[in-house]
Amino acid sequence: MTTTIRILGIDPGLRHTGWGVIELSGMRLTHIAHGVISVDPKQDMAERLGGIFEAVGELARYHQPTAAGVEETLVNANPRSALKLGQARGAAMAALAMGGVPVAEFAPRKIKLAVVGTGTADKDQVMFMVKRLLPKAADLKSDSADALACAICAAHHLPADMKRGAA
Amino acid sequence: MTTTIRILGIDPGLRHTGWGVIELSGMRLTHIAHGVISVDPKQDMAERLGGIFEAVGELARYHQPTAAGVEETLVNANPRSALKLGQARGAAMAALAMGGVPVAEFAPRKIKLAVVGTGTADKDQVMFMVKRLLPKAADLKSDSADALACAICAAHHLPADMKRGAA
Repeated sequence: MTTTIRILGIDPGLRHTGWGVIELSGMRLTHIAHGVISVDPKQDMAERLGGIFEAVGELARYHQPTAAGVEETLVNANPRSALKLGQARGAAMAALAMGGVPVAEFAPRKIKLAVVGTGTADKDQVMFMVKRLLPKAADLKSDSADALACAICAAHHLPADMKRGAA
Repeated sequence: MTTTIRILGIDPGLRHTGWGVIELSGMRLTHIAHGVISVDPKQDMAERLGGIFEAVGELARYHQPTAAGVEETLVNANPRSALKLGQARGAAMAALAMGGVPVAEFAPRKIKLAVVGTGTADKDQVMFMVKRLLPKAADLKSDSADALACAICAAHHLPADMKRGAA
């Protein structure tokens, strides 16, 4: 019997948080849904973080993922922007933890390696391969393509006990 | 009639999050409670953030603060440690937002100015003045002294409409 595992990928950002849900059934990946959580930059910081928490929690409740992958973005960041990005990640990861979803973190290099086959792939190559691996994903934008790539990477790195269930 | 305003101060950290609750009644400050939320560094990141979220949410529900102040710590941080600190702040601030508590952020300089009278005061001076302003605060450690200092600063900077209520 083939068990299906549902995986949620998140690419957190203070303004736009990409998300994507895929299913792994044996060796087969299927696209379920994707989108972007956008919060109003005019709201104060705590409200924006509460908005991210609420939306990610809602995704966890609606899609009931078995596992989640979060992208560890940290590109050329100065401490101030790293702190802000960290806040968005903190709100998103707290929401997953509160929803009881196990979370793995993946460096961009690891995600590119899993999706494109090389850790130095550029954005266009990632987008190309996400569309190729998940042909049902229509109208993909960069944030949700990154989130789906993260979900694909998480599928590759599932703990052995979960993989056995899906084999 | 003098209204009493309850203020929660938070000094977030991935390992130790200091907190303190004070009351402002007219011009008078009273110590209510303080403590430190410590999460197990052996847990994975999402669990730690979930732990911070849960504990801060519990403080908000139990003490029912009218307002909260969060310290904007960012001392000599490299991007990687700033990202981690940001995650702790994100989890704490999301919990306050979800609890419906308005949150103000204060730079360490501003907190020192409010508590000691100079933005360049050191840790010992802050501790000394917190004990002086809140004599009922016993067994103060550094993290909760910083959180109480942040609450005192938030009391100084309450929006005019809240202050009118307490005047």
